[in-house]
Formats: sequence, C-alpha cells, structure tokens
Amino acid sequence: MRSMEEIPSPGRRMAMLLAVAAPGLLAVAAHAQSDPLPSWNEGPAKQAIVSFVKETTTPGSPRFVPEPERIVTFDQDGTLWVEKPIYSQVIYCLDRVPAVVRAKPELANVEPFKTVLSGDREAIARLPMEELEKILVATLTGMSVEEFRAEATKWLDTARDPRWKRPYTELTYLPMQEVLKYLRANGFKTYIVTGGGQDFVRIYAERVYGIPPEQVVGTAGVTKYGYDKDGKPILTKEPKLLLNDDKAGKPEGIHLMIGRRPVAAFGNSGGDREMLEYTKAGGGARLAMIVLHDDAVREYAYGPAQGLPDSKVGTFSQSLYDDARKSDWTVISMKNDWKRVFAFD
Amino acid sequence: MRSMEEIPSPGRRMAMLLAVAAPGLLAVAAHAQSDPLPSWNEGPAKQAIVSFVKETTTPGSPRFVPEPERIVTFDQDGTLWVEKPIYSQVIYCLDRVPAVVRAKPELANVEPFKTVLSGDREAIARLPMEELEKILVATLTGMSVEEFRAEATKWLDTARDPRWKRPYTELTYLPMQEVLKYLRANGFKTYIVTGGGQDFVRIYAERVYGIPPEQVVGTAGVTKYGYDKDGKPILTKEPKLLLNDDKAGKPEGIHLMIGRRPVAAFGNSGGDREMLEYTKAGGGARLAMIVLHDDAVREYAYGPAQGLPDSKVGTFSQSLYDDARKSDWTVISMKNDWKRVFAFD
Repeated sequence: MRSMEEIPSPGRRMAMLLAVAAPGLLAVAAHAQSDPLPSWNEGPAKQAIVSFVKETTTPGSPRFVPEPERIVTFDQDGTLWVEKPIYSQVIYCLDRVPAVVRAKPELANVEPFKTVLSGDREAIARLPMEELEKILVATLTGMSVEEFRAEATKWLDTARDPRWKRPYTELTYLPMQEVLKYLRANGFKTYIVTGGGQDFVRIYAERVYGIPPEQVVGTAGVTKYGYDKDGKPILTKEPKLLLNDDKAGKPEGIHLMIGRRPVAAFGNSGGDREMLEYTKAGGGARLAMIVLHDDAVREYAYGPAQGLPDSKVGTFSQSLYDDARKSDWTVISMKNDWKRVFAFD
Repeated sequence: MRSMEEIPSPGRRMAMLLAVAAPGLLAVAAHAQSDPLPSWNEGPAKQAIVSFVKETTTPGSPRFVPEPERIVTFDQDGTLWVEKPIYSQVIYCLDRVPAVVRAKPELANVEPFKTVLSGDREAIARLPMEELEKILVATLTGMSVEEFRAEATKWLDTARDPRWKRPYTELTYLPMQEVLKYLRANGFKTYIVTGGGQDFVRIYAERVYGIPPEQVVGTAGVTKYGYDKDGKPILTKEPKLLLNDDKAGKPEGIHLMIGRRPVAAFGNSGGDREMLEYTKAGGGARLAMIVLHDDAVREYAYGPAQGLPDSKVGTFSQSLYDDARKSDWTVISMKNDWKRVFAFD
C-alpha cells in the first residue's frame, strides 16, 4: 500500500493541475511572501516602487488602479540596459558597413563609409550626426523586415560589448528586470518606449525583458507593402521617418501605439522628460523615476552628481536633475540603490 | 455534524480558490463543452473557424501556434458592425458641424459647411471626397485628445441609427462577437485594424468588443505634445495624416503597431485585401475570412452575389470575391451562415 504522500488526493490533483495550468497565479502568491526586489537596497527608491504597487493594487485603496489601466513605460538605453560608450544599435549599423560596401563597392571611397571602413575609432567617434545618419539609412532601410530581422538576430548572437566581453543582451540591469517582473506579477502591462529603433528592439525584447513586440514603442520608419519576385507580399523598410520616439515624441508615440496615459514611467535622460511629465500629469496614483548613472566602478558615472557642467554629463543634465526634485520624480542612484547591477555580477 | 458536502476539504478549498482567482481558466473549460458559436448555422464558415482554433491550440498538433503568436485582426466597419448607409464616424463629423460653425461663424456661408448646415441630405450625400475631408479636418482635429474623447463619448451615448433607432454601438454582429470571445477564450489576442479613426474607435472598443485601446489600429493623425495655459501637458490632434490604415496601409499599420504577422484576419471589403493576403502568406496555420453582405432583410445586401456590376456593389467587388475563391479565403454569407445578426434581434 502506498503512503498518503504518494496517493494524489483530489486536492493534490487540483494543486498539481493548478501548478501546470496557472504558473502566473503561483508566482503572484510566491511574490507576496518574499522580497520582490532582492537586488535593491532599502531606501526611498525601493520604497517608492513597493508603495506604488501596494496602493494601486489593493482593492478599496483610494489610489486603486483597475487592471486595464495599469500601463507602465520604460525607456531602454540607460534605463533597462547599458548605453555607454555608444548605443548598441549604432554599433550594429557600423558593423554592417562592410557588407553594405560589398553590395555597393562604389561606396568604399565615399564618406562616411570610407572612415568607418578605416577602423579608425577616433575618426569614427568624430563623425557628425548628419554623416552618422547616412550610415543608419544605409544599414537599417532598403530591405524587407524579415531580412533585417535575420541580420540583426545574427549580430545580436555574436557581437560582444568591449568592456564586459558579453552579448549586449546580457547588459541589462538586474534591479530593473526585477521591477518589470514585480509589476507584471501585479497586473501591470510593461512597455518599452525607446528612442532606439522599434524594429531592432522588438527582435530581442521578448527574450530579454519578457516584453512582446506589440509592447515595444520606438523610433519607426515607414514600411512599404509590396510583392517580391514570386508575388509574395513583403514589407520593405523605407528611408523615411514615421515616428521620432524621443522627447515630445515619447508621449506622442504612447498615444499612437498604446492610447492610454501610463500610470508609471521610468527613464534616465532628457529624452524621457516629456514622458515622465505626461505620466505624472494624469490623475490618481503616479510614479515617475529616473536612473542616475553615478557608479563608475560597477557601470559608468555620467550624471550631474559628478559635478560636471551640463555640456559634459551627456543626457542626464543638472536641469533634468533639478526638474526631478521639483516634479517629485524619484531618482534611482545606481551606486546607492542597487545591491547588484548585472545578473552576471 | 455537517455532511461531507458542507465541509470544504483541501481539494474543495483549492477548487473554490481557483474559481475565484482564475475565471479565464474555467471559461475555457466551459467552452469546450458547449457550442462556442451558437449564432452560427452549421456550414463551411463555422467549420473553418472551429477547425482553425482546434488545430492551432491543441498541443502536439502539427499546426499548433504558441500563445504569444495567436494574433487575430478584424476590420471593423462592415465586419464587426453595420457600415451602411454611411460610416458612423462620418455621421459624427456631420453632426459636429453646427458646433464648429458656432465657434467660427464665418464658416456658415463657406462650402461644404453651408451644405451640411442646410440639412439637405441629398446634397450632403453628393459632396465630393475633398469637400468631405474639410469636414473631417474641422471636426476631428485642432482639439486635445481629451476634448475629442469627451465630445465623441457624448455623441455615442445619444446618437441613434436611422433604421434600427438604436445607438450605433448596438449594431454589432452577434456572430462576430462570439468569434471574438471564442478566440480570446483560446488564448488569441484580438485586434481591430480599421480604416476608421483610431482615436474614435478606441473610445468604445473596450466596452463594445472587449478590445482595449492598445489593440485598436486605425487611421491616425499626428498629435503634438505641448502645454495648456496652466502649463499642463496636452496632446493636440493635428490636421496631418500619420497612418492611412486602409488597403496596403493595413499590413503597414499592423507591422508598426503590433510587429507580428496575424495568423487569422477577418474583413469585408477591398480595403481588407492586403491584410488578408499578408496574413495568409505567413507559414503554418492561417485563416482568412470575408463577410459577404447578402441579407437585405436582416441587414443590407451589397455584395457581388447580387449580380450587380463592380461599380454598384460598393466595397465588396466581384474581383474581391474571385480573389477569395482563388486565395482560399472563406466567405461568410450573412444570409446563410448567421442564425442571428444582432443581439437585439
């Protein structure tokens, strides 16, 4: 005779069914018991997140938010993953230049392709924005969306960040990954709203952040519907900007693609100012947070806390920092608020 | 002593918890036992839907589709609700003209506003497209997205269709409402992809179809981020087209807003041809369906089945019908396939 432990009672069978059929449900239950943000130090930033989730999800709370309205938006570069020394998508474009020149050899002696091919890093870093744009157009448009996806996927699988020697997709911040999961476990829908290319980020967002393509809003070009030589429908990426998803373009993009004002938003730069402002201006419970890069040892330090003038601190200027204080946005100090920065630490 | 029936065993407690916590799960189980499409007559159209759902959701089926890829798109006007005698959004715009003229009295003697104010229905119906566009621009742009939402909501609550004397939002097809629910109960994400105005449809789509704003893709204009006189952020609807979500614009809009190719699509007109084509051209299980309006008694008849020349049948032409046959799209005959047309029948 088998012991009681071995015989599945109806209750045990139901529990097993539940474990198979509704993992999300069990995850919620587990979350309620343990710290949902183990990579965060105790402090005002962690407290702001936990309090916001509690007061918006507790039925009967005066700041309760119904589940369909639990929309949260995250900037990507510098907020969810490393943006220094240069955006990974720009590196992708530079890495694609040799292939572009192989297909069109006449470009080999034309700027800016000539400089990129030279491999002279300092000269490449000095390329002005309008020259860089020629590289972006040549490497991000003119192909079908499937061809682009195949090329970018191949690159993401093989390219390595120069400092950590790891795939770019591993350079995500563990504390922010915890915030994404914590919010989703509490019925929030998490979106990326990035100045980066929408088609590029969509390739890895599901695998890397658990965010499906339809929840990635980014800078987007026109695509053109047509047919290939076999008469099969294709969408071709055109060199024409449709949505510049940066600064004022972020709330505009949110309205276009989501159609609801977020209740919480996370950013790290002047490009996120309008998104944070717009989020905070809605009624009821609101959370706006900005990541301050002040940890030169574990990541980079380029925020105003370094005492540098605005022109030297990159995207997180002193005026943004002042705005944060004035507007009740919560600053996340990488150095003080994060116990760990990366999963591989 | 209470009977066994009254004492909640651990198993019963779990079952009760499950009933409270996971209604979606139970809904799926219930669906499996009853007819999910009671307003459909037995026939090839109903069969196509049921077979598609079974083969794409049965684990181990050669045509199984993982849940994140279960994207289905529906045209709205003529596919989910009545589009005759004129699109309801156009009626909204015409109804708004008196208010526009009150705000700008100089328009009273300017065409096409003068004709609309005259109330002469035949003259209004004869207005050429470029004149009608002036009405759309004057009534759909120049205000904040919140002001537009408030006005359109008020109109939707009070306006009545001339034939059925009911709110437009009640003129949805019951059989299609069943398809939406049946698909969602089986893990499909349902989207509206409409040539109509995205901001307009988003106002009622959640209430009417259970489709949230972020799952409505429609014709969209530019919005401009700015500040009102109190310094509060606002988005203003600009008279500039961003996405013409009709014909080739439908797959383009799907790529922009969803980023995945649908596995099933439903339409009813030439404006849906490219969406059906694009959907069908993907690999694996695919379903493409078009609604044929052939029921003058219960709704309207304006399809090719009426033996009218293409120029007289409106949007569903003989060539579209021929395409459907050639491309293995399933035609839904309102007359033969639908037991009931409206919930109020």
